[in-house]
This record gives sequence, C-alpha cells and structure tokens, in this order.
Amino acid sequence: MIIVLKPEATESQIKHIVSRVKSIGLKPMISRGVERTIIGVIGEEDLLRVQPLEVYPGVEKVMPILAPYKLVSREFKPADTVVDVDGIRIGGKRLVVMAGPCAVESFELLLAIAKGVKKGGASILRGGAFKPRTSPYSFQGLGEEGLKYLAEAKKRTGMPVITELMDLRDLEIVERHADVIQIGARNMQNFDLLKEVGRSKKPVLLKRGMAATVKEWLLSAEYILQNGNFNVILCERGIRTFETETRFTLDMNAVPLIKSLSHLPILVDPSHGTGRWGLVPSMAKAAVAAGADGLLIEVHSKPEEALSDGPQSMLPEKFAKLMGELRRVAHAVGREL
Amino acid sequence: MIIVLKPEATESQIKHIVSRVKSIGLKPMISRGVERTIIGVIGEEDLLRVQPLEVYPGVEKVMPILAPYKLVSREFKPADTVVDVDGIRIGGKRLVVMAGPCAVESFELLLAIAKGVKKGGASILRGGAFKPRTSPYSFQGLGEEGLKYLAEAKKRTGMPVITELMDLRDLEIVERHADVIQIGARNMQNFDLLKEVGRSKKPVLLKRGMAATVKEWLLSAEYILQNGNFNVILCERGIRTFETETRFTLDMNAVPLIKSLSHLPILVDPSHGTGRWGLVPSMAKAAVAAGADGLLIEVHSKPEEALSDGPQSMLPEKFAKLMGELRRVAHAVGREL
Amino acid sequence: MIIVLKPEATESQIKHIVSRVKSIGLKPMISRGVERTIIGVIGEEDLLRVQPLEVYPGVEKVMPILAPYKLVSREFKPADTVVDVDGIRIGGKRLVVMAGPCAVESFELLLAIAKGVKKGGASILRGGAFKPRTSPYSFQGLGEEGLKYLAEAKKRTGMPVITELMDLRDLEIVERHADVIQIGARNMQNFDLLKEVGRSKKPVLLKRGMAATVKEWLLSAEYILQNGNFNVILCERGIRTFETETRFTLDMNAVPLIKSLSHLPILVDPSHGTGRWGLVPSMAKAAVAAGADGLLIEVHSKPEEALSDGPQSMLPEKFAKLMGELRRVAHAVGREL
Amino acid sequence: MIIVLKPEATESQIKHIVSRVKSIGLKPMISRGVERTIIGVIGEEDLLRVQPLEVYPGVEKVMPILAPYKLVSREFKPADTVVDVDGIRIGGKRLVVMAGPCAVESFELLLAIAKGVKKGGASILRGGAFKPRTSPYSFQGLGEEGLKYLAEAKKRTGMPVITELMDLRDLEIVERHADVIQIGARNMQNFDLLKEVGRSKKPVLLKRGMAATVKEWLLSAEYILQNGNFNVILCERGIRTFETETRFTLDMNAVPLIKSLSHLPILVDPSHGTGRWGLVPSMAKAAVAAGADGLLIEVHSKPEEALSDGPQSMLPEKFAKLMGELRRVAHAVGREL
Repeated sequence: MIIVLKPEATESQIKHIVSRVKSIGLKPMISRGVERTIIGVIGEEDLLRVQPLEVYPGVEKVMPILAPYKLVSREFKPADTVVDVDGIRIGGKRLVVMAGPCAVESFELLLAIAKGVKKGGASILRGGAFKPRTSPYSFQGLGEEGLKYLAEAKKRTGMPVITELMDLRDLEIVERHADVIQIGARNMQNFDLLKEVGRSKKPVLLKRGMAATVKEWLLSAEYILQNGNFNVILCERGIRTFETETRFTLDMNAVPLIKSLSHLPILVDPSHGTGRWGLVPSMAKAAVAAGADGLLIEVHSKPEEALSDGPQSMLPEKFAKLMGELRRVAHAVGREL
Repeated sequence: MIIVLKPEATESQIKHIVSRVKSIGLKPMISRGVERTIIGVIGEEDLLRVQPLEVYPGVEKVMPILAPYKLVSREFKPADTVVDVDGIRIGGKRLVVMAGPCAVESFELLLAIAKGVKKGGASILRGGAFKPRTSPYSFQGLGEEGLKYLAEAKKRTGMPVITELMDLRDLEIVERHADVIQIGARNMQNFDLLKEVGRSKKPVLLKRGMAATVKEWLLSAEYILQNGNFNVILCERGIRTFETETRFTLDMNAVPLIKSLSHLPILVDPSHGTGRWGLVPSMAKAAVAAGADGLLIEVHSKPEEALSDGPQSMLPEKFAKLMGELRRVAHAVGREL
Repeated sequence: MIIVLKPEATESQIKHIVSRVKSIGLKPMISRGVERTIIGVIGEEDLLRVQPLEVYPGVEKVMPILAPYKLVSREFKPADTVVDVDGIRIGGKRLVVMAGPCAVESFELLLAIAKGVKKGGASILRGGAFKPRTSPYSFQGLGEEGLKYLAEAKKRTGMPVITELMDLRDLEIVERHADVIQIGARNMQNFDLLKEVGRSKKPVLLKRGMAATVKEWLLSAEYILQNGNFNVILCERGIRTFETETRFTLDMNAVPLIKSLSHLPILVDPSHGTGRWGLVPSMAKAAVAAGADGLLIEVHSKPEEALSDGPQSMLPEKFAKLMGELRRVAHAVGREL
Repeated sequence: MIIVLKPEATESQIKHIVSRVKSIGLKPMISRGVERTIIGVIGEEDLLRVQPLEVYPGVEKVMPILAPYKLVSREFKPADTVVDVDGIRIGGKRLVVMAGPCAVESFELLLAIAKGVKKGGASILRGGAFKPRTSPYSFQGLGEEGLKYLAEAKKRTGMPVITELMDLRDLEIVERHADVIQIGARNMQNFDLLKEVGRSKKPVLLKRGMAATVKEWLLSAEYILQNGNFNVILCERGIRTFETETRFTLDMNAVPLIKSLSHLPILVDPSHGTGRWGLVPSMAKAAVAAGADGLLIEVHSKPEEALSDGPQSMLPEKFAKLMGELRRVAHAVGREL
C-alpha cells in the first residue's frame, strides 16, 4: 500500500502515520519526492486495508497495490476451476449451454421446451420458479410448484436444472430440487444470501450485478468461496449504460478479463444481456469466440404466451440452428460443444 | 398503449393482434400512417403490460403511455405524504436530519456521537448494526448487539433511531429496536425484503439503487405500498457513473423529479453520495435548496478509528457548523430546520 | 408521432394543438382513453420533429414513431453498402483488417510496422499524423510530415492508408495523402467537420463517440451522407461506462444492432475499445463472430518506444498469429479473410 | 510515479526498468514487499508520464502520484481566478447569471428576450448563432447573421454577449461580435479549437463534455491556459448516465470538486443539464447553494416557436421570479446576486 501525503503535511503528521503503521506490525518506508512525500508500506496489505488511512491528517490519498480478493484470483490458484454438475464439467474444453424458459409457467410448456433444448444440444435446463420482477404487478413466478415441475422435467429428460434463489428462506427447498443455484444480478450484493450459498454443497452460478465492476463481482464470489463453497460459476449478463437500444450492454470484455484475473469458469447470458432475441445469435457466437466457457440462453416455444421476458426468448428451432453455428465457432477457437 | 407495426406487417398479422387485444377486454384503434400503421389501445393499460406484445409477428415496438407505478404516484395521491416517526414529521415544512456513524462500533462511541449530533440539531440517530460490505474481509457490523446499543442510545438521548435491514430473518428484531427501517441501495431490488417490510408497521427509508432509474426506484417503493405500508421515505444516495473522483455521483436532479412524480418524502445522503466528507457541506446545502425533505449525514467523533466509511464522515463540530448553514438555506427556500 | 396529453388538459388546449398540427399540413387523430387523451399525427413525421410540441400547454410527452435518420437506414436502402478503397471492398464477404501504429513516429518505424502487418495479412495501413490527446503535454503527432511518411509507406508496400482528420483546415492535405479519412470518437459530433468530409470524395471511417448512443452515431453518419458522401464505414471503439479495468467498454452489441438498423459496413477497434493488448485477440475474434466487417488493430514493433497508446499495441508476430486465428473464426461464420 | 512489478518479474527485467528510469534523469527506489516489488520514481513525474512503462516486461501497473494538469490546479495558483467581462467579474463574491434563448432566431425575438432577462437581473446575454445539432435535419443556426443580431442587442441593452464557437474558421468573426466565446460540450475535446481559443484574448467558457471526467475537463482547460489564455470559465452542463427521465444528469458534485482542485470559476447550466424547464428552478438554487459562481439559463418568450430546445426554456416572467429566489439562496451562503 502506498500512502501519498499532502504537500503541506507536517513532520508530526508523518510521525503519527508511521507509528500507526508500525503498531499494526507493518514496515513503513518514507520516500521524499520533489512534490510529494510518500510512505510505502511493506507487509500484509490486508491489515491496512481496514484502516481508514485517508482520514489521517496529512494524507492526500491511499493507493492499494494488490487486488482486494484472494481465493478467486488466478494468483492464488493458477489452474482453471472446473465445476462438476452431475457429470457435466463447466470450465473445461467442452462448452456448456444452459437453456430454457425465463420463468416456469406450466409443466406442459416446461417439458416441451426442455425436450426442445435437449434435442438442440443444451445440457442443462434453466427455468425460474422465483422471479425478481421490477414491478409488483408482473408475474412473480410459481414458487415451490415451479421447482417441482423442474425436478419432474429433470427426471423425464435427464437434464440437470438450474434455478434462481432470491430469498434465503427458500435455500433448502431450492437445494433439494436444483442442481445449480443461480444468484441473480439484483442479488449480487445480497451478502447474507452469498454467505448462505457459500455454506451450501451445490454449485452456484453468480450473475454480475448490472452496476458491478469486475472487481466487485469477484469480491461477491469471494464471499461464497470464503464460506467454503468453491464451486462457483460466473455469468456476465449485461451492465447498465446510457445506451437504450439494448436492454443492457452485454460486456464481452469481461470474458477475457475474468479469465486473466480468476480461475473460475465464466458463462455469458446474451438473452438478458441484450433483451432482444434478434441479437442473441450474434452475441452468443461472439461469447464463444471471446473464450466463454458456455452460455445461458432463453428459449420458449410459445413466446406470445410467455409471462416473463418473451421478447428475448428464441424458438426451439432457432436455438437448434444456433447450436450448429456455435459448434463451428467453438471448433475455430479450439473448444468443443 | 401504442403498438407500432413493422412496415411489412400483413393484414392477417394485424387481425391477430387486434383479436388478441379485444380478447383481453380492451379496445384497439387502428391508424394507418404514411410509413407505419399503429394500433392504439384504449382501456386498462395494466392488462396489456404483462402481454409480450413485442413478440407478436408484425410488431416493431410497443410504447406505454402511462407510468408503470400507481400508489406512489402524485397522480394517484396529489397531496404530499408526511411520515410520522415518534412525533417527528418527515415530508412537512420542517426538514429532518438523520445523523450518526456509518457503523455502530461500541456503545461509548455511539453514545458520544449521538449526543454530539443531537446537540448539533439532528433529530434522528442513524447507525448500522448489519453492514453490507463489498469485501468479505471488511467489518460486517455488530449485529444484534449493535441494535441494543442503538436502543440504549435512544433511551438516553430521546432520539428515534434508523438502522439498515439486510436479511429478512432479522426483521422482527430490527422492528423491535428501530423506529425507521432502512433498505440499502444494494437491496433496492431485493423484492422479498421489500414485500416483508411492506407488511411491517414501521416507516421504511428506501435508498435508491446505484444503477436504478427513478422509475425502477418508484416501482420498488410500489412493492412496499402495495403490501400495505404507506410510510415510505425515499433517499437519494448517488448513482454509478464513469466519474471516479467521487465514490458515486449524487443525482440531485432526482429531488425535484421525485417531487413532481410522487407524493413520498425524499431525503438526500451526501455522505454516501460523494464518499468524501469535504464535499458533504456543499452537497447538503444543495440538497436543501433543491427541495429535499431532509438529510442523512455520517458523523463520527474519531474517524481514525471508524471501521466503516471513515473518509466520508464529518466531525461533530463540523456537523454543528453545517447545521447552522443549512438553517439559513432552508429559510431562503421557505423551509424550517 | 404520438402526442400524449396531461390528464388535466382542457378542450381549448386540445383545439390549439390540433389546429397547429393541421397548419403544418398533417392530420391529427384524437383518441380519448380512460386515463389519457392522445393525438396521433399522420403525415411526414419530420415536419413535426422540429416543432417544440412538448412546450404546448396540456402536453405531457411526445413520442416519435420513426427513427430520426433516413439515408443511413436499412429501411431506406435494404442492401448492404460496400465501400471500395483502392479495390479493397469493405462490407462484403471478405473481412478487412486495418493495422498499424497508433501514431506515426518515424518513417523507419512506420515502414517496418507496415511490412510486418502486410505480411501478417492486413490490407490497409493505419497511422495517426494528427493525434487527439487528452493532455496538452502528450505527443501531438508529426502533422504533415507524418502524412508524407504514410504516403511513402503506401508507395513502398502497396497498402492503402487510413489516417485521422481532426482539423478541417487539414482536409485538403489529408485527402491528398490518405485513402480513407478517419473521424475519431472525440469528433463524432464535430458537425462542421462531418459536413466537410460529406463533401469529400474519399471514403470516411466514422468512429463512435464514447458517450454516443447508436442513434446519435447514425445521425452523425447521416450528416456525411446528406452532404453527398455515401462511402461511410462505421467503427465501434468502446463506450464510457463505470468499469475501470478496461479503458473503455467495447460495445459488441453495436455490431448486430448496426447491421439491423443500417446498410453501412461496421468495423471494430479492439485496441482502443479495451486499452489492453492482452484483451485484443479475444475481442477481435468476438467481433468477427458477432458479424463485424473487419477490424482496426494497433500494431507496434517497439512498444517501449511508442509515443502513444503503447499499452494497447500488439507486436507484429502476435498480430500475425492472431490473423491465423481470425481466419478460422471468419470461416466458421461464413466469411473470408 | 509508482511502478508495480508482476510477482514473476525477473532481476534482469528490474534492471532494465531501473536503467531506463535513470536514463531519463530520474531516481528509482526499489522496495521489495511480501507479494510485490515496487519501484518508486523520484523527480519530475512529467518526464515519465509520456513513457509507455506499462509495456515494459515485468510491469504489472503504473500509478501516477500527481494530477496530470498544472496551470489550472489550485496547487499551482491557490487564489481564485476572477475573469473580467466588460467590467462584470466572474468568480468573485457576486454571482453572474447569463441568460437568453438557446438559438438566435430573429432580431425582434432576441431583443425582446434580452430586455426580459436584463429586467430579471441577468448580466450577460446568451444566444447561439452556430448550433451543434444531433440531427442534420434540425435548425442549424443563423450563422454570421445571428452574431450581428447579438452585437446589436448588446448595443441596445448594454449587456455583454456570449455565443458558441464550433468551427475554428469562424473564430475571427465570433471574436469580433462576442464578449465570451463558448466551447460547447461536444467540442470539449476538439483540441485544435482549444488551441486556437487559447491564443485568443477573449474569455472562454468551457462546457464539460457529456462523457468527460473532471480530470479530462481540467486537461481540456489546460490546453487553453497553456496556449496563453488564462481567462477560462468552466461550466457544468450534465453528464451522460443511464437515467432517462432527464436529458442529462447534472453533476452538482462537480461544483465543490472543481473548487477544491482548481482556481477557475465554475458556472452551472441547469437548462441543458436537465432538459426540462420544470426542474430548472430547483437545480439553479441547488447550484448556488453548492457554491457555483453563476448560472447559464435558457429563457425564451415564445417557447412554442423556439427552433431549438424549447422544452428546457423558461418564460421571462418565471425567470424573474427565479432570480428573486436565487438572491435569497445566494445571501444564505454568503454570496451576492
């Protein structure tokens, strides 16, 4: 950590800071420059991170040297993490596609879509039983009933299922029915929820918050790992920007960035990321080319009857066609699908 | 609601949409323009809002006419809402200042700060027992112990207290100790939490999410009102932008905007909104001049020992001086303090 | 265009608006709904667009039905535009890669890099003679001398050259030496410059402004077409968001979006878009997979001596390796390189 | 400047960097920490700033210690700059209000508005002769004719005038007719234009770009000062964010921030900053309370006939009323109006 002092910092202020740094067990090194004096601190940066050094008299700013996360960093664990979901490996050479309706609406519809996406080549079924909706007047999901439909669809198709957990009181029942627990963008900084799924044995898919920097996203993942659950899959799903033509701005840069900073696998959700099904194929192919470990895609066989996010859902036939295209792109970048 | 058709929309597509609109009990009006045909829909817009009209063949876009919220709107209730907290009226002519430390750290410190801010003119004591921290390695708050300290500080100073609720399992105990329940920015779209505090009898202060539009913020408030709790206070606390000199960009425009769209009172939190105590006085005065109903200000008597947000906390003496300045601005705009 | 009236709009206000609409030669259609009265206007929307209808008494909001641009729209010209640069076709099946140093620094260096990128497979040489630099203390470019170096490098390698025009007083000399005129992000709304290059015969590459919506970007292109120059190539180069790990957020969604809205070709600049050469290969491949018509890539043989944007430049050998990878991705999506 | 090395940096890489730093005439200080080695550099930071140190093998990141601007900084010149415009002092105790129409449309209208705003208490007349319009189909301004109207209005009312310069070929004629040259938001990084007005003797009002950080804005001002013109007035006019209820997000935080970083005066333009005249009074009062040195306000006597920005213009009577309110707020914060 580097402490930059104000030009007018006094000797007694410098002494005060130095003695404080020493009292924590760290070693300060003073360097007097032409325009500023700085104090470099050697030792465990974490010990200092929780000190409000900016408020010490004479301090202009404090600059950390290290990233604030540990367990999720590639520096901590250089090898890629591969998360195993019922034998399906996420983060390896083979890409994984999770597909299905935004919300579970009825068992018949869910089963039909599940069969469709399986035929198309998806390996995990997605579907929301609990839905985070911006408006209280929108469909809020079928709840436990939806979870049971998912479990039944799994039994019939053999596909593991992923579903979102919003309320930590539902953790047990979601754990019972789902193979992967999804934490949605709006809950990326619901820290109590993160701690709870950190204590779970189930893999967790952590979506990026719509206003979260990559650093904050990794710190949220750190909450999960730090509580004992290392089976975390990241998922980029679009950030909020000034652009209004798309619902969000899918941040593709996050894919190679996460790959360089962290060992965790990363998926991309082009359906939520753009909010327009017409853009999904292009962005799905781009995600694979950028190095993503897989995709989360909304598919609906009757978009006109979808109770949630119809405009960003693909028809099963279009999904199957897209899978063929994705396979070619995957091969071009040395991956399989 | 206006349905704009694609230039190439066919007659049978138009028929299909028209029959769908009628089947919901609404009245479609077709208007054929030079470059586009549009279908205006007359009747309860809400009935259509949940229909995924964008996915109907032939539809180019759908434009709602009405705001998506009801109960929070000034159209629904023209008169200002005044929330009563232990006899203190929020939303009336007199401004309300809530002040105190970011986190409750020890009882002695809390009591000292409480006495300081009371002397300075604050009427409600703020302090976090449960802290939403970006990093799992930061101080997470004292929890229930912190709540008890707040309750004791209230007993000794007579000031009502406000504290944040993060985990809905803590609702009961927060309700027992606090006079106002705060929902933080990171939980603005934690819809289960919103529903629960909607069933509470306590006033709720709802902070704006850092990536929330004013519309989404009002929809989150709508969740609380719709569940029965009309005692909602809004609080602007800064949004996320590209600017890095300040921690967030305090969006002062939200103050007059909320006043025109909603009947709910609105406070401003210049401490979190800027992240720099040196900017707090200017922004606090600006908030009062812009028409805010009060302020939330972080005050700490020993910022060097603060376990959270030291850099944005003011000393009690500076706070007292600021209160004098705020009083003059309040009078200049016809308010009291 | 739809004019939405306030709930309290009076009959005389409605009459005033209706008579105004008629006086412009348009046909108003009043539709009285349950909560709002709206006036649909039939006829040339452009006639109304310049009227400040929002300020008319009784008006709540005005909603345009049509996109504000014409000549650049796919509705106006359904077939893809292919821009010819010295026999190289931009916007066709074959992708075009423009590569070279950020700034022209010396003739020897430029020539070495030119030969390197040509060998790697680039078909157009890029290099800045006039440099838009955030700080007045940064290298501002060699000016006319740099242009001559570019012309000489073209003579020796046979590669057409692209360079940025910043100051319209330099138009003539840039036209003389360059084959494509680049308008940089910071000048995307320098309308006088747009008008001037609109009168030029040379192809223009128009970069997206860092805070420009896709709509505004297309309107800037419209300035060029409307002045007579239809040879416009768009280039996505990253927008400004809250994320700080990358210099900008390369908005890949813009590629399929532009393809659906406009007939103009679109390139992607992953070097400026990310600001980190380590991310360039992934994002370049993503751009090709997303459907871009080509790339703009910064290459420098001695990044340690680069006077501008060293951190985002690739070495010629890495560039050649990337070209091989891009070729495979191009084939996977039905393109050539 | 601090150079942070990668964990795997070799001794020979360190030697290479150290010798490079020395060769520029600076003094490197190596500090070997537990997890990272860092090299502090003592001497003129500017010498290093132009070196692409990030690309040196073994370097992880480079962190500057000093702000990149000089002449505009308060560190360089602690006392407030006061700009004199025909005897009107901008940046002193007395606030300055510039008011008038967005665009000059006809002489009669301009004169009527000029008289109105003068009566209301404005001291400088604003009006655009050259208009930067997003669409080529919008009114582009009267050009030189508009400048003559402004000069005539000045003669008749005695008010100095401010107008925007877009095209540097118009500098001479704008200098002849105007008392303050305005550089608009879209030209904040039109560096050739900045250099030219830097050589002018006229005061320059520099608006903040809609995607410019405060640091970039100050660097643009630095261009003007560095070319010899120290009479620069800054003007906050709203930045681009995700919020769509307002046209831009007026960033009030910039006011105290600029005051702490720079000696230059700062005005606020609530008309462009919000895009809604209904929000102008609140934001104007907030700006004064925040410490702004004055305001730029759009006033139009016939908004229904305004050819530009009607929706954000106030009527002269409303403006006069607002001036009375502003006077009270000014007194409350120790200023005059």
